[in-house]
Amino acid sequence: MKQITSRDNASYKELKHLASSASARKKSAKTMLDGVHLCQAFLQHRGSPELCVVSASCVDHHEVVGILAQCEEDGADCIVLPDNLYQALSQVENGIGILFVIAANQEQAPQQLSLNAVLLDNLQDPGNLGSILRSAAAAGIQQVFCSPGSASAWSPKVLRAGMGAHFLLDIFENVDLHALISASTIPVLATSSHTKTTIYQINLNRPLAWLFGHEGQGVDPELMALATDTVTIPQKPEIESMNVAASAAICFFEQVRQQIAGASK
Amino acid sequence: MKQITSRDNASYKELKHLASSASARKKSAKTMLDGVHLCQAFLQHRGSPELCVVSASCVDHHEVVGILAQCEEDGADCIVLPDNLYQALSQVENGIGILFVIAANQEQAPQQLSLNAVLLDNLQDPGNLGSILRSAAAAGIQQVFCSPGSASAWSPKVLRAGMGAHFLLDIFENVDLHALISASTIPVLATSSHTKTTIYQINLNRPLAWLFGHEGQGVDPELMALATDTVTIPQKPEIESMNVAASAAICFFEQVRQQIAGASK
Repeated sequence: MKQITSRDNASYKELKHLASSASARKKSAKTMLDGVHLCQAFLQHRGSPELCVVSASCVDHHEVVGILAQCEEDGADCIVLPDNLYQALSQVENGIGILFVIAANQEQAPQQLSLNAVLLDNLQDPGNLGSILRSAAAAGIQQVFCSPGSASAWSPKVLRAGMGAHFLLDIFENVDLHALISASTIPVLATSSHTKTTIYQINLNRPLAWLFGHEGQGVDPELMALATDTVTIPQKPEIESMNVAASAAICFFEQVRQQIAGASK
Repeated sequence: MKQITSRDNASYKELKHLASSASARKKSAKTMLDGVHLCQAFLQHRGSPELCVVSASCVDHHEVVGILAQCEEDGADCIVLPDNLYQALSQVENGIGILFVIAANQEQAPQQLSLNAVLLDNLQDPGNLGSILRSAAAAGIQQVFCSPGSASAWSPKVLRAGMGAHFLLDIFENVDLHALISASTIPVLATSSHTKTTIYQINLNRPLAWLFGHEGQGVDPELMALATDTVTIPQKPEIESMNVAASAAICFFEQVRQQIAGASK
């Protein structure tokens, strides 16, 4: 296992750049997974990283030992850093010092919707995006399509909030949702408070795509007009709306409930 | 309308203290509502604030004019601040400069659970707490009980995430959940991944309390043991858990669905 001890080392400088700069991550098509949980989830679902970085004081931690063993078995590069150098890379406070550098290649989005999917138009908050990815994966949804203005799905914040959901999903970014919805042969459902049909009244036991939008402004009206149906989550009129990640979770799991009910018929 | 122009003014110093210090808010039993939306929601549901503070450049904004008119009609104190002094109080960037100072009195919690309620054990994240309050209010749940270790419900961050839900709920903090659950005559349901009964299989069309816990560690095992039932949200086994606010929203709205289905029978 290689050791780096100087902050002037070229590889270390590159790591630091990757940790702190969204444009560096974008340019290199790489991102960082910070902490034991994300690294374990990646190994389990996606295999070995490009690089594994460990802080010196955590080399003997039993979970780190297991991760390092698998990385070395797979021939992945591993680096040990002094704790102070490691800390400058990590956004996790008081965590166990291990991180992966992985490729965050943009897969080409399919031209056509055919599986259960989530479409995100201009969603801004990394915590909301991570929570939606986690709920979607938990509900067995496979594909997520994000518009150009949405938060970056592979940023460290979204990865942390996603808790490994990223590795179970196909996430497509910078997608022209207008074209995708226009060409769709499966229903695209958008939630709206200005509609009467509730999520409990519509058949969700079929392949469909959910469309959610910006936290403040909602879905772009032009996209909304392209949706097959608008549906509502029936709520007290005194409340204007719910958090978008909460709304999404309710929709995804009403779909799960209808799938279970359909299967038992 | 009173004007303050000096940052050495005693009232301004007090406001700044209130804006920046959780212990100052606790000691004075006051908090701040930042922005047009929260101020409007407060006026609508709770009446006038103790104090209304406006930034000079926003005095003529049409929504501010409406809020000020109602405050003055009700005899509430109003203060105008130069923009730079106002900005030092506000956590909202590029927002419309208006905030309320309100009493955040702790109401005495009822000894007995009798209405639909949410119990929060050691919930940490302000965003999650705000989202749960918003979903609970949207689902028509009336009471929220927070354990001593939970995030402060009346902090500016939680108020922002709650988007006015606070004013529709009875929120009780520093509650001994152990005693409350032990004495409860209505069911207390906790979600768990180690149980077989799903939220879709249990009767939720009756008064009950939902118990949710810490983001990482979940509900304290001692409290969990006191719950009437544990229920699960059926999800893909590859995902360990969902975000707690997403889980709560799913539970609350499965209850709403069962209430609607029950009413139409």
